[in-house]
Amino acid sequence: MREKILLLLNESDDYISGEEISNKLGVSRTAIWKVIKSLKEQGYEIESVTRKGYKLLSSPDILEEEEIHYNLKTSLIGKKIITYDQVDSTNKEAKKLALQGTEEGTVIVADEQLNGKGRRGRNWVSPKRTGIWMSMLLRPDIRPENASMITLVAGLAVCKAIETTTDIKPLIKWPNDIVINGKKICGILTEMSSEIDYINFVVVGIGINVNTKKFPEELDSIATSLKLQGNKAYKRQDILKKILEEFEICYNKYLETEDLQEIIDEYNSYCVNISREVIVKSKDISITGTVKCVTPKGELIVTDSTGKDTLITSGEVSVRGIYGYV
Amino acid sequence: MREKILLLLNESDDYISGEEISNKLGVSRTAIWKVIKSLKEQGYEIESVTRKGYKLLSSPDILEEEEIHYNLKTSLIGKKIITYDQVDSTNKEAKKLALQGTEEGTVIVADEQLNGKGRRGRNWVSPKRTGIWMSMLLRPDIRPENASMITLVAGLAVCKAIETTTDIKPLIKWPNDIVINGKKICGILTEMSSEIDYINFVVVGIGINVNTKKFPEELDSIATSLKLQGNKAYKRQDILKKILEEFEICYNKYLETEDLQEIIDEYNSYCVNISREVIVKSKDISITGTVKCVTPKGELIVTDSTGKDTLITSGEVSVRGIYGYV
Repeated sequence: MREKILLLLNESDDYISGEEISNKLGVSRTAIWKVIKSLKEQGYEIESVTRKGYKLLSSPDILEEEEIHYNLKTSLIGKKIITYDQVDSTNKEAKKLALQGTEEGTVIVADEQLNGKGRRGRNWVSPKRTGIWMSMLLRPDIRPENASMITLVAGLAVCKAIETTTDIKPLIKWPNDIVINGKKICGILTEMSSEIDYINFVVVGIGINVNTKKFPEELDSIATSLKLQGNKAYKRQDILKKILEEFEICYNKYLETEDLQEIIDEYNSYCVNISREVIVKSKDISITGTVKCVTPKGELIVTDSTGKDTLITSGEVSVRGIYGYV
Repeated sequence: MREKILLLLNESDDYISGEEISNKLGVSRTAIWKVIKSLKEQGYEIESVTRKGYKLLSSPDILEEEEIHYNLKTSLIGKKIITYDQVDSTNKEAKKLALQGTEEGTVIVADEQLNGKGRRGRNWVSPKRTGIWMSMLLRPDIRPENASMITLVAGLAVCKAIETTTDIKPLIKWPNDIVINGKKICGILTEMSSEIDYINFVVVGIGINVNTKKFPEELDSIATSLKLQGNKAYKRQDILKKILEEFEICYNKYLETEDLQEIIDEYNSYCVNISREVIVKSKDISITGTVKCVTPKGELIVTDSTGKDTLITSGEVSVRGIYGYV
């Protein structure tokens, strides 16, 4: 009933009377009043005016299935949304659900991760209600070797979503970090379960520092939040919804060609590494050069001082900027 | 105690007296007699001669950790062995254990799979004690895109193991089926969990029809067993041990170069497709041609009637022989 009343309030531009709600939902006006009271306690700002009824002025920044679904313009991504107050990690939860057969497009969102993970098992700090901690479950019918590009698709979607829902323009540090003013604001962890030539599922984990006020000392020089950058709090719900919408658009373009052909110009326009000097290091090679661009296959082209281009796949290297934008 | 007595019996070329066992293990001769009795009931053939002691003549075909470990010449593969009477599927069990952090080289063996799986979720019939139903857990420090070759490594190891422990020479139908006289005797299902540039784990599932007497009608024309081919029963334990040993050798060679360089000649010597005519079919292409060889990267080279070579990766096609050896 709570969800139905919220929906009616959301859908009304003006006041909606207790009588109208009562008629539409077939419940008593006392029952409605009780729900309104509890919504107010949860942070919903609802104006009650005698003879006019109720009007929703603002919603709190709660990540709830119904709120996220409301007016969400996607057909696949977020068709099913599962929200948690607390999880071990959203990727772990998504992988567990994937093994149980949960459908493509399912999105896992948590207010808090107790054991959030970055790449290679590194920790990802995810305190309660300060950020967007989410995972998307995908089952693309593509070749497993093409799946790594999904990280870049997600990076682009996150940048576009942040840019349109805040006044901040984030950049992408190839392949999978989102940075603002040289500090990390978002990490993306893409994990895949596959057979030799068949993808069981892909889980794309996204962690965004939204309203973090302060980082632990060891992270302070490398991490930041939207709040710290924009000097105000942002509504996680709005950013999250926009990510789902932008991701669906980019993901569909990617599926068409199984590469980044359709979105690579846009990706490059957000890529912080372009025209910057980098050191590329792996077991076998060490190259210092200038980044030319990212290719439609997701590789980085680095031009060394002799003019020679080298193609870098994300699998082989760590790329370090040498001018402090890492 | 049972395991320790079995080990002593296994290690003695001649009779070992109850007194000697009693002294070595610090248990009463009555206790020893009871264990011997129960071993006999389980199918161990043990001769007891007054004043001489006990002699192990033969062991039953039980897949038990201690029996498999005895004299096993590997250092990584099978260091830990977990045996089950019955599992859902050994791959599923191995993946579950992998997520819990179980170490590389762990081998899961079951007498029966209730829900054995082939590629793309197909069923794999695995009746009680008629075959080898096993999975190996690996954590190779290699690039995810190179992991698909592990299926070929396993295929070669299985062929070599069967050939040396039976009098039958199986062949490999590229990339992952083992066949004898045109019928399938073994399937291999390699599954991987990975990040964009990092392997969490690989599980190699191997199913071998060893002593199957009869297949269901729908499988009869495409499946066979070692027993049906060799007209006798084989000891699963011997074959299994040899697979672990051969796999470790081949796997180490593969890890050295992250490809099949060191073993590809041997692989090709077992490959049934070589010099045969095949039809290669995928979404986009259809090629009829003759198989030249498999490359060190695991791809198939097919030469068409104009002499043009095409490189086939396992990801893109189904390969069908047109002379009944599928």
